[in-house]
Amino acid sequence: MTIQEIRDYLGQFFDAVELAGSAERVISGPAKIETAVSGQVGFIANDKYARFLATTAASLVIVHRSVSVDEFIQKSSFLKVDDPYTAFVFLLQKFAQPRSIAAKGIASTAVIGKAVSIGEGVAIGEYAVIGDRCSIGRNAVIGAHTVLLHDVSLGEETVLFPGVTCYDGTLIGKRVVIHSGSVIGADGFGFAPQKDGSYVKIPQMGIVEIGDDVEIGANSTIDRATMGSTVLGRGVKIDNLVQVAHNCTIGEDTVIAAQAGISGSVTVGRHCLIGGQAGFAGHLELADNIQVAAKTGISKSFLQPGIALRGTPAQPMRDQLKHEAMLRNLGAMKDKLDRLETEVKELKNK
Amino acid sequence: MTIQEIRDYLGQFFDAVELAGSAERVISGPAKIETAVSGQVGFIANDKYARFLATTAASLVIVHRSVSVDEFIQKSSFLKVDDPYTAFVFLLQKFAQPRSIAAKGIASTAVIGKAVSIGEGVAIGEYAVIGDRCSIGRNAVIGAHTVLLHDVSLGEETVLFPGVTCYDGTLIGKRVVIHSGSVIGADGFGFAPQKDGSYVKIPQMGIVEIGDDVEIGANSTIDRATMGSTVLGRGVKIDNLVQVAHNCTIGEDTVIAAQAGISGSVTVGRHCLIGGQAGFAGHLELADNIQVAAKTGISKSFLQPGIALRGTPAQPMRDQLKHEAMLRNLGAMKDKLDRLETEVKELKNK
Amino acid sequence: MTIQEIRDYLGQFFDAVELAGSAERVISGPAKIETAVSGQVGFIANDKYARFLATTAASLVIVHRSVSVDEFIQKSSFLKVDDPYTAFVFLLQKFAQPRSIAAKGIASTAVIGKAVSIGEGVAIGEYAVIGDRCSIGRNAVIGAHTVLLHDVSLGEETVLFPGVTCYDGTLIGKRVVIHSGSVIGADGFGFAPQKDGSYVKIPQMGIVEIGDDVEIGANSTIDRATMGSTVLGRGVKIDNLVQVAHNCTIGEDTVIAAQAGISGSVTVGRHCLIGGQAGFAGHLELADNIQVAAKTGISKSFLQPGIALRGTPAQPMRDQLKHEAMLRNLGAMKDKLDRLETEVKELKNK
Repeated sequence: MTIQEIRDYLGQFFDAVELAGSAERVISGPAKIETAVSGQVGFIANDKYARFLATTAASLVIVHRSVSVDEFIQKSSFLKVDDPYTAFVFLLQKFAQPRSIAAKGIASTAVIGKAVSIGEGVAIGEYAVIGDRCSIGRNAVIGAHTVLLHDVSLGEETVLFPGVTCYDGTLIGKRVVIHSGSVIGADGFGFAPQKDGSYVKIPQMGIVEIGDDVEIGANSTIDRATMGSTVLGRGVKIDNLVQVAHNCTIGEDTVIAAQAGISGSVTVGRHCLIGGQAGFAGHLELADNIQVAAKTGISKSFLQPGIALRGTPAQPMRDQLKHEAMLRNLGAMKDKLDRLETEVKELKNK
Repeated sequence: MTIQEIRDYLGQFFDAVELAGSAERVISGPAKIETAVSGQVGFIANDKYARFLATTAASLVIVHRSVSVDEFIQKSSFLKVDDPYTAFVFLLQKFAQPRSIAAKGIASTAVIGKAVSIGEGVAIGEYAVIGDRCSIGRNAVIGAHTVLLHDVSLGEETVLFPGVTCYDGTLIGKRVVIHSGSVIGADGFGFAPQKDGSYVKIPQMGIVEIGDDVEIGANSTIDRATMGSTVLGRGVKIDNLVQVAHNCTIGEDTVIAAQAGISGSVTVGRHCLIGGQAGFAGHLELADNIQVAAKTGISKSFLQPGIALRGTPAQPMRDQLKHEAMLRNLGAMKDKLDRLETEVKELKNK
Repeated sequence: MTIQEIRDYLGQFFDAVELAGSAERVISGPAKIETAVSGQVGFIANDKYARFLATTAASLVIVHRSVSVDEFIQKSSFLKVDDPYTAFVFLLQKFAQPRSIAAKGIASTAVIGKAVSIGEGVAIGEYAVIGDRCSIGRNAVIGAHTVLLHDVSLGEETVLFPGVTCYDGTLIGKRVVIHSGSVIGADGFGFAPQKDGSYVKIPQMGIVEIGDDVEIGANSTIDRATMGSTVLGRGVKIDNLVQVAHNCTIGEDTVIAAQAGISGSVTVGRHCLIGGQAGFAGHLELADNIQVAAKTGISKSFLQPGIALRGTPAQPMRDQLKHEAMLRNLGAMKDKLDRLETEVKELKNK
């Protein structure tokens, strides 16, 4: 792909893509600005990396339109845009090879249940096991060793990597991606304590519903509801090793980082950002657009949209930062207290 | 099932199940009180939900015997009991469909090792791999893709969902349930540091022993002992993504919530409740009936039964709550200190 | 193996292995000192266990050379060494049976892609799926149900337990061990926020590179880089349920305990010890030989080698312990403050 072709490609999505330098070199692929070699394209979105303008071997660099590049155009070409990072992400997508997770068609070793509906263009990998009455949407991809129990539904273009398990009744939307080892629809953790100290299992009769454009990382667990549905809204993004317990509802476009855990019957709003290793007590609610710092422990509902939370137990960022500043100041408080004690003693002795 | 039949069914287990309203309507299944439709049965165990008495469309509601329902019996019937929640759990079990994890018999694609003993009524799913000298108890169910290495023993009616892995020598009791992706008996994390800064692996020669009526969630890991056994006592319930390290002993009927982690050689007593994301340092002991709050970090033994723990490092709940109250009061302390400083200055200036 | 033979075996690795008591008894295997029976060998490396010298039924006990054993040599024999723990680890390795994960050769049910290179002595288990252009080193072992996508390379004597998934392009060194359920090379968690609040996926085009002698526990996740490589250096040891995000570099011989999480683009030095459930914010750096306590939350870089870190946010151990001592002292501070307040009031009233 020549620099001219890259310019034209980005020009479809972004206004005013301005070229400085040669348009003719052929670009082989993207790279980090600090390790790029001749023939590659990098980007600089941050002043911290501006020093690489002079030193990078990249043949093309995407920069902000305010960056002055004239002295470097003998060495590299430049595309000047409003948002170099997003422009570069579009280039990454352009250069990305379609990944081969499973070949088109149904592998001869796959086991397909009764009354399964399979759309056009589907790829089902080696040793996949598809239960009765499942429905696989057009162009969906099911990796090797993935297991769908009965009555699972996958929307169009959904991709399950190898080794995903979906329990019975799971409903998955379109263009969903689920990485290896994730378990969707296992039983919620519900046991009724008995007088003798043992527990009786509470049957988990509900399902999991996953909206369109959701992505779930590796080895995460989304439990089925006791009754009704555990719901991941459209566009939710979930990292690795995340726990979403029974009867949770996660709002659209909410992002949950690795190892966070959401207890049963929690409702999280839309467009929230949940940091890694954050934890939620059960039966609480978070409004829309809330940011939860990593490792935060949320013990009650927060219903004001747009706030940031931090600490265990969590409180609004401002209160928590004030609290943490006070904690850091504890030594000074102690010193002042000791000094006052001495002064009071002296006053009394007068 | 008619309301009369439900009354008779619950009457087998609970004293004095009292009916108010029609006994004849047919009930199709259970539902949450707030979303139940006509023909369904719900329950109210909590005053917070009492407002639904007037508005629910449920045809039958399980309530506490103290609840006054006379004004609603035209709309719904009521069963009055001592413990509506537990009565409802029994109804859930009654309505639950037996789940089809694997068909009875041995799937033609399953690989069975040498000298394997298989009880009557067993179901072994597609592509399951059973090692040499394994023993599968009567009516046990082994899901698709589940792997037992050599010398694994499963008790009667035990259920392994698809994609469970049991390492060699694992002993599992009766009526145990293990959800997908859990790994039982992987090597404990033991390495001896060498003078050059590298590590030599300590062979993990022990096994895992799991008692009767244990349930383990999805993607949890229970490591084998270095020597001897890692033990989960009868009735232990473990949620998703939990880590139990080598040589731990977890007492009977103890419950461990998601993402908790128990380090090596920890002994937890019976009937304990361990909250989500709690963590234990190694080689310590917890007495019986201890409650550990979510996210607690336990750094030493607690040998007094029945206490509650919280905080990092953990301390008894009462001390910790007092400590947290003092922390919340830090701003007031600071203000008082500043005021005293001014007053002392004034006194000195006199 | 007789005691004499054990002495000779240890003598190859350790200076001055001194025998006290009979050399002739036959030892059947190792055991913990507190549960050993006649015919077994145990060890005592810690004064806490010295009381077992008198009571153990072990026929052989490894002890430090300073321990006085004369009064017990009628009952047990003793080998006196400088480092009883390490000597015992070598004995464990001597007694350990080679584990049968998969039989030598390629199982008839394994699916092998095109242009795969397979070394001598390899064992590939039932239903393993090996993608195109993979390379499997000499004597490598691949467990049942393990899946390698395309272009994965495994070094000599590397062992993948059943149910490991390696995404395309993963490069794994020699003598690496990866336990069941771990997922190597899944997509890094990268999404570019759009103006409408939704996210566009950032293609994850890099790979994972794993050095020689690495061990990874069960159900851990090591994500591929966005561009370039996520790197685990030679000798890194990773426990269960650990998250290593995209573009991390973990230095040689660093040890990471269970449920720790390392965010994207973190660089950890060599010979570090990372405690369980510790968490790292993204884009930061840790020097060599740093110890991170369990549950620590690291929010910035620490570039001084050899320090210990603790707390959330993390600070050097010494500062943190001082801080924690001050927190424990808060009640006393409050009392002193109240007393001073009274005294100042009295002074003013004079």
